[in-house]
Amino acid sequence: MTNPTNPPALQPGTLRVIPLGGLGEVGRNMTVFEYEGKLLVVDCGVLFPEEHHPGVDLILPDFEPIRGRLDDIVGVVLTHGHEDHIGAVPYLLKLTRDIPLIGSGLTLALVEAKLKEHRIKPYTLTVREGQHEKVGPFDLEFIAVNHSIPDALAVAIRTPAGTALATGDFKMDQLPLDGRITDLRSFARLGEEGVDLFLVDSTNADVPGFTPTERSIGPVLDQVIAKAPRRVVVASFSSHVHRVQQVLDAAHAHGRRVAFLGRSMVRNMTIASDLGYLKVPEGVLIDYKKAKDLPDDRIVYMSTGSQGEPMAVLSRMANLDHAIEPGPGDTVILASSLIPGNENAVYRVIDGLTKLGATVVHKGNAKVHVSGHAAAGELLYCYNILRPRNVLPVHGEYRHLMANAKLAQDTGIPSERTIIGENGTVVDLRDGVASVVGQLDLGFVYVDGSSVGEITDADLKDRRILGEEGFISVIVVVDASTGRVISGPEVHARGVAEDDSVFDDIVPKITAALAEAAGNGVRDNHALSQVVRRTIGRWVAQKLRRRPMIVPLVIEA
Amino acid sequence: MTNPTNPPALQPGTLRVIPLGGLGEVGRNMTVFEYEGKLLVVDCGVLFPEEHHPGVDLILPDFEPIRGRLDDIVGVVLTHGHEDHIGAVPYLLKLTRDIPLIGSGLTLALVEAKLKEHRIKPYTLTVREGQHEKVGPFDLEFIAVNHSIPDALAVAIRTPAGTALATGDFKMDQLPLDGRITDLRSFARLGEEGVDLFLVDSTNADVPGFTPTERSIGPVLDQVIAKAPRRVVVASFSSHVHRVQQVLDAAHAHGRRVAFLGRSMVRNMTIASDLGYLKVPEGVLIDYKKAKDLPDDRIVYMSTGSQGEPMAVLSRMANLDHAIEPGPGDTVILASSLIPGNENAVYRVIDGLTKLGATVVHKGNAKVHVSGHAAAGELLYCYNILRPRNVLPVHGEYRHLMANAKLAQDTGIPSERTIIGENGTVVDLRDGVASVVGQLDLGFVYVDGSSVGEITDADLKDRRILGEEGFISVIVVVDASTGRVISGPEVHARGVAEDDSVFDDIVPKITAALAEAAGNGVRDNHALSQVVRRTIGRWVAQKLRRRPMIVPLVIEA
Repeated sequence: MTNPTNPPALQPGTLRVIPLGGLGEVGRNMTVFEYEGKLLVVDCGVLFPEEHHPGVDLILPDFEPIRGRLDDIVGVVLTHGHEDHIGAVPYLLKLTRDIPLIGSGLTLALVEAKLKEHRIKPYTLTVREGQHEKVGPFDLEFIAVNHSIPDALAVAIRTPAGTALATGDFKMDQLPLDGRITDLRSFARLGEEGVDLFLVDSTNADVPGFTPTERSIGPVLDQVIAKAPRRVVVASFSSHVHRVQQVLDAAHAHGRRVAFLGRSMVRNMTIASDLGYLKVPEGVLIDYKKAKDLPDDRIVYMSTGSQGEPMAVLSRMANLDHAIEPGPGDTVILASSLIPGNENAVYRVIDGLTKLGATVVHKGNAKVHVSGHAAAGELLYCYNILRPRNVLPVHGEYRHLMANAKLAQDTGIPSERTIIGENGTVVDLRDGVASVVGQLDLGFVYVDGSSVGEITDADLKDRRILGEEGFISVIVVVDASTGRVISGPEVHARGVAEDDSVFDDIVPKITAALAEAAGNGVRDNHALSQVVRRTIGRWVAQKLRRRPMIVPLVIEA
Repeated sequence: MTNPTNPPALQPGTLRVIPLGGLGEVGRNMTVFEYEGKLLVVDCGVLFPEEHHPGVDLILPDFEPIRGRLDDIVGVVLTHGHEDHIGAVPYLLKLTRDIPLIGSGLTLALVEAKLKEHRIKPYTLTVREGQHEKVGPFDLEFIAVNHSIPDALAVAIRTPAGTALATGDFKMDQLPLDGRITDLRSFARLGEEGVDLFLVDSTNADVPGFTPTERSIGPVLDQVIAKAPRRVVVASFSSHVHRVQQVLDAAHAHGRRVAFLGRSMVRNMTIASDLGYLKVPEGVLIDYKKAKDLPDDRIVYMSTGSQGEPMAVLSRMANLDHAIEPGPGDTVILASSLIPGNENAVYRVIDGLTKLGATVVHKGNAKVHVSGHAAAGELLYCYNILRPRNVLPVHGEYRHLMANAKLAQDTGIPSERTIIGENGTVVDLRDGVASVVGQLDLGFVYVDGSSVGEITDADLKDRRILGEEGFISVIVVVDASTGRVISGPEVHARGVAEDDSVFDDIVPKITAALAEAAGNGVRDNHALSQVVRRTIGRWVAQKLRRRPMIVPLVIEA
């Protein structure tokens, strides 16, 4: 990371922007806007852990820069209802419940359902595209954008210091299922008026061309379902209302009924249909418990687990650990992306299902998924219609941010006006010029079981060593006054070798090393521990060619 | 796995085939053929560990079925020089060095270099396409096949019981760089003569269509290198002679010299050029130490590390942990596949290089890789030209084997003549009919540091728990006769919580539980350990909502 540098005190007439998450990573999107002492937060998401975060449940943005200023927050705008934009809201509201949440109908309904599990009832302000709201010193205008969840909004933030436009996640499907396109007319109007800072989704900036329309998936689903001889299971993201809509329509067209499987699928689709985002054809839904009385060729199960998550419905089906046991003639469609890092888990599920006799249709062998993010070609349209004065690419790994900045420059925005930031980069906007004025030192906040922010990177390093190499503990009880060994050394190992007899050789060596140390007058517990650690560490490295964690436990009695 | 069933004693006039590895997995390919008491082994490879094999270096086939019969082995045919086909040879030869290795010139040269590191000098028989060899009761004929390494061979195995054909890994590039195509004329001739059992590469059986020609990569490399303003680094597999050839040619065409980086790249390319498989244009190679004296636009580095392996050259470059430090204007080409499971590691490398200012060209944004395996369209050609009586798909996960069997059936081979096997499936061939007659119970043999086969699945389970959750150990010293606590309980944890004071609450509870047990006359160490385990285990589950490994250590003094 760039070396931390404290930003100067915020000058009057200046808009300060600090991304707390989402830069250099895909997830935990969160940006803080400050003007005249008041703070506006846009999004508050989680990051899902990778293999170098063993055991961690979720990763939150570091709230440190706003922790002492909770009373200054005038609102949290949530651009859409995906976890990487709303998942950290419960943890923010646990600091104070007074912050109003601002978002579209569907977005707030999904957040409220999540908050209910944390027993939090939030203050909310429901907005829709075209709406203006004055929140503290910030004049907000909400603009429709198209994404892989309905009712997503971009937000224009006007202050006397200038206008920022944050896209949230978006793409530019020109024929979306709900007819609600990304509102380029408003982008054009804002561009005419002058946008000083454009915070723009970078997720697919390194993908050439254009994201195909969601509508192209319908005929593929239709064809697969038409030909399926027995049961059909479709797995997808539980918030992808339009994907589910196309499954419902295809099932309906072929006289099949649909049962939702998986807690989040049931919950989200209930919300989406209650609010009118999901149009359920008359009589198509059926409770999954009743579905098994239907003939096999009359049912489609719509389930979670498309990323191979071990506890989700699809993995459990593949392991015959679910009431629905797939078999020959059944068809399983993974209508989803394959998020990097999940490949092996997903392939294990595909393999398990294939082994049970099911036919598995997935991204690798059929066009059953399109992305939710604007590819390079779409982003060029945006830059050309908006012509922003300054650009801050957000939402993406470094390579995505770089690719996005390059696109901006290709449309004529000077390179000194495209800012590659990190989490904690402090950007001040004044007189139409955005400049980096500081860099905060932000960390990762791990949710681990019931603990939030207690597990540190040192603990994760310990876990990685333990997970790769196991540990060896050596217990010795010594007489406090003489240093004489009363009991032990006992050597216990886990994850190291099949049986502890491999350590028989080392016990006399430890005893001898301790006797020598005691003879030299060493009494201190820590020093004796070091003697044990050195003796066994050297032996293990040589004999086993491994470096397990060595845990010497010298007890005085 | 299918329940183990012992096969019947092998009848005279029957050919028995047992795959020991490579079925249900991509790697550790090894098949044993038995006729009249003699054994022929085809390939002997390793499997690379995935994330559920933490700390493991390599996975070997289970040699158990041949361990007591080493003297019966008449030879090991190695179809080509990739690790998943030759990597376990040193471990087999450690059991006995008397087994001759049979393979092409390049294959044996690569195996010999590997064996040298293990200080083993093998008996070898070099063969080439068209050659026949009688090895024990097996009449072998070697047939040229095209793959992502030169000099690959299929082997026809003739016995009085019938003829088997094992493809090894192959594809059917019709315009390969070296002009050495998969010899379909010989396939046709064998087909006329009658092939009873076809063991066929399944790796790409679920990929529709045809693998593009290796030759299509040359112009892309040429164009990228032509436009590169400064240094170029190309990373690829260190055995991919033709890929390296195209890099040499492109570099040469643009007046650049090439330096090899990485131990395996240097070693393999020295072998390949010594044997004439790599044609090095006059004066193009340069030692990497001298390369840095060249102008930046006159050099191409050809390196290892295309899979994001942390210790390989490319990862070290990305971490500025290598003498060559990439910077703005440099171009890095990852001319390689992205093996599932390596995505995050590779993306971290791409990100690191991008951050340093390098332009990264990879499979995701340019056509710089083609597969080494026949896709579905090519396999159909094979089946149609060969028309085998029985098919045993090999080399692949279950879904690949299934897809391959389906292709065989599409060409008219009856489904009862396509065998979906597992490692250890015993197939007997007699009178033109192949049947499954048993299933051996085979395991995974882990190479872990200096140990081979000592680490068990239980150890790996321990490592996974330790890696996800950490451990808590509780040490108590008790008086052997009274059960009274003399010292402790001391609670130590690693990978669990930031500081051990979180356990202050539990110490008095453990003391009380032990006192109660002692009062009830419990003296047994194991029983007292269980008291400790239960007390702290319950507390941790409730208080931290985690399940770390609990290690109670009750010591008598």
